[in-house]
Amino acid sequence: MAQPKSGLPEQVSKQIIQLILNEGLKQGDRLPNETVLSEKLGVGRSSVREAMKLLRSRNIVSIRQGSGTYVSSNPGIAGDPLGFTFIEDKRRLARDLLEVRFMIEPQMAGMAAEKATADQVQNIKKLCDETEKLAAAGEDYSAADTAFHSAIAESCGNMVIPRLMGILKYSVPLFIDVTGKQLIAETIRTHRAIADSIAAHDSTAAHDAMYLHLVYNRNIIANETDQE
Amino acid sequence: MAQPKSGLPEQVSKQIIQLILNEGLKQGDRLPNETVLSEKLGVGRSSVREAMKLLRSRNIVSIRQGSGTYVSSNPGIAGDPLGFTFIEDKRRLARDLLEVRFMIEPQMAGMAAEKATADQVQNIKKLCDETEKLAAAGEDYSAADTAFHSAIAESCGNMVIPRLMGILKYSVPLFIDVTGKQLIAETIRTHRAIADSIAAHDSTAAHDAMYLHLVYNRNIIANETDQE
Repeated sequence: MAQPKSGLPEQVSKQIIQLILNEGLKQGDRLPNETVLSEKLGVGRSSVREAMKLLRSRNIVSIRQGSGTYVSSNPGIAGDPLGFTFIEDKRRLARDLLEVRFMIEPQMAGMAAEKATADQVQNIKKLCDETEKLAAAGEDYSAADTAFHSAIAESCGNMVIPRLMGILKYSVPLFIDVTGKQLIAETIRTHRAIADSIAAHDSTAAHDAMYLHLVYNRNIIANETDQE
Repeated sequence: MAQPKSGLPEQVSKQIIQLILNEGLKQGDRLPNETVLSEKLGVGRSSVREAMKLLRSRNIVSIRQGSGTYVSSNPGIAGDPLGFTFIEDKRRLARDLLEVRFMIEPQMAGMAAEKATADQVQNIKKLCDETEKLAAAGEDYSAADTAFHSAIAESCGNMVIPRLMGILKYSVPLFIDVTGKQLIAETIRTHRAIADSIAAHDSTAAHDAMYLHLVYNRNIIANETDQE
């Protein structure tokens, strides 16, 4: 299967990525306008416009009508980067995602207990409160739940892990769907234990609390599969 | 930062993804042609063409001139899906990627020893031979090295791990670059130990051999950092 020669917009989009890197543009920074880029790169304005559309679809730039084009937040990380949309067996996907979370998250929680700053601890506790409040009220807590796990990832001192969690979080809504409301009490309790042990900078307790959190998830999934 | 309303091509691209899923199209399958899609989705042919360009940039379809549009292999997984291009500190990135590989790859090797089929074992041994031959001849063995690790990932029985390895493999060329030629002897020796223990279906030995492989990498990186 030979790849077709990539078109001009594709090539221009690579030049624009290089320009973002060379000029050290950060997320939220504005790119030069179409006319400037078109002169700089020696291509027509319509090619620049086409290239920007490709870059937008890959979440590298955001185009704001009437204002300009900006470097995206988390540039280059698009929704569903591992193509989970194209996996049909969602139950097996949920099981395999959980298996990977077991490999990463307990250690990640332990690292966060060692490395979280005072501000990060505050944020983790706040998100723990929020999840608890929503879950107790019977409301959708999946966004707060995801934010809680992301905040821990951001505090663990490894720059790859938060990016990976952005992928694995796919499994949180999946689980809420697969497991119904059975997990609410366990979620509240284990989230609290995780937040408290990170706040106490107790690495072993944070590791174990996260492990237990994942065990509850795995038990529910195993039971559901048995009943089929 | 309000997101701009996504354009028509963006919406049409979502409809095409849905069509791929609904019709159960697999990698390599041909999509209906522009005219058919344009009628089916009730939009102009130029919108279908624009949408296809977006889908190509996300590696969901491949457009072959004069032949048609096909579902990509590994649809939805584009190059550098976690945006590592935009991380400046490549040495820290290498260290953090290695830390994540420690969390995943020893367990993955153990799982592969339990689950690899006879064909998969043959392939792993073949790639081990190839890497060894290239490395011993002083040639670039990074592609063979990556293929060796991918073949183990494909044999471990978890469908998320091979997709993750596609991201983490980013670190292999990075290491060869960072560490020069110091690792060749260790790479040959530990690769052989990994391949042999998977072939013997010895899960513990495979786990330990992979762990040792990563330790060699980490030692070299630590030494290099000391010398700065």
